[in-house]
Amino acid sequence: MSLVRVHNFSISLDGYGTGEGQSLDAPFGHAGTRLTEWFFETRAFHRMTGREGGTTGVDDAMASAWGPGIGAEIMGRNKFGPQRGPWEDESWRGWWGEEPPFRTPTFVLTHHPRPSVEMEGGTVFHFLDATPEEALRRAREAAGGLDVRIGGGPSTVRAFLEADLIDHLHVVLVPIVLGRGVQLWPGLEGLQERFDTEAVSSPGGVVHLTFTRPRA
Amino acid sequence: MSLVRVHNFSISLDGYGTGEGQSLDAPFGHAGTRLTEWFFETRAFHRMTGREGGTTGVDDAMASAWGPGIGAEIMGRNKFGPQRGPWEDESWRGWWGEEPPFRTPTFVLTHHPRPSVEMEGGTVFHFLDATPEEALRRAREAAGGLDVRIGGGPSTVRAFLEADLIDHLHVVLVPIVLGRGVQLWPGLEGLQERFDTEAVSSPGGVVHLTFTRPRA
Repeated sequence: MSLVRVHNFSISLDGYGTGEGQSLDAPFGHAGTRLTEWFFETRAFHRMTGREGGTTGVDDAMASAWGPGIGAEIMGRNKFGPQRGPWEDESWRGWWGEEPPFRTPTFVLTHHPRPSVEMEGGTVFHFLDATPEEALRRAREAAGGLDVRIGGGPSTVRAFLEADLIDHLHVVLVPIVLGRGVQLWPGLEGLQERFDTEAVSSPGGVVHLTFTRPRA
Repeated sequence: MSLVRVHNFSISLDGYGTGEGQSLDAPFGHAGTRLTEWFFETRAFHRMTGREGGTTGVDDAMASAWGPGIGAEIMGRNKFGPQRGPWEDESWRGWWGEEPPFRTPTFVLTHHPRPSVEMEGGTVFHFLDATPEEALRRAREAAGGLDVRIGGGPSTVRAFLEADLIDHLHVVLVPIVLGRGVQLWPGLEGLQERFDTEAVSSPGGVVHLTFTRPRA
């Protein structure tokens, strides 16, 4: 059975997975780059963005688990872009340029479906108005037996956790108090009871938490 | 200059320092002992409660920093006991029996002052209706040049952080989602900018975070 995985999902000490005030220039709102700086330093991110260099320590090892074995991604609309409501402009093709790093079918959850968009390098964006269960069924069909990644943002990860559809959750705790934005944890009381949890601090200054569903 | 310190302050992933529904039988409400189990295992706690044994690893080392150099404690009324409003019963002398572990003057913040209570072993409870600044001035006088500990609960620690009165904050992150209770972080956006922060995971399964005010 293929797994449903979340990787490199950064949150602040107060549980915010993104800040307030997303815009074209600020995908994470007032959080800026503070939640993702640990990731930007890694070789995994450098390779993902077609560059040389980057660190190869603990943070990179954790970051690198993002790609292997994934056959499809599901993301929320706010990860895809800053627009809300009906699409005023279908020319928006995501934050990632013409060759996004996903390289698989990628399902964008939205109440406003639009035609699929094929990008370079294997990423095809499909737009779905669907429950988590329905979206996962579609993604699993597209993944050809490989795992499905839930890509974020926090509302999307939370919805899949509430529906108990996630097998592996990797959260990165960044030691800042963000104060405003969208939180991961509300509604998830007792989450730990469904998972084996581990925590490891990295010399880079963040804490990697993993939640792994026990296998039967 | 004496420092103002917080030690062994446990919170859940969603930032709750105590659960909902405190009562005589449940000092931490529905959290039960889940926030403090890591501490109960340590030799520091065993000694604090007059017993032999306990672990002597990372958690114990962190826990042990609680006592040395402290000349007074300030705590909120809900740490002292479960009663609210005017004291119906002044026979309540705290959760800790006749010989509490504090062994210093201990200032309980309450809107309902009552006569001081001298316990065995050096602890004297004083009851103060005071701002954080006023309470700290009183505690410093009583501490004789030693440091002052802010003992909790979360509302009290938060009030002293909001007033920027804390020099050293040790938070212990317990990997559970508590869902309800009293949170530490609200109102503290940008807290990290005033501190040097460190994080270390312990084999016991918790994460120790320290916030240290840079010294001039």
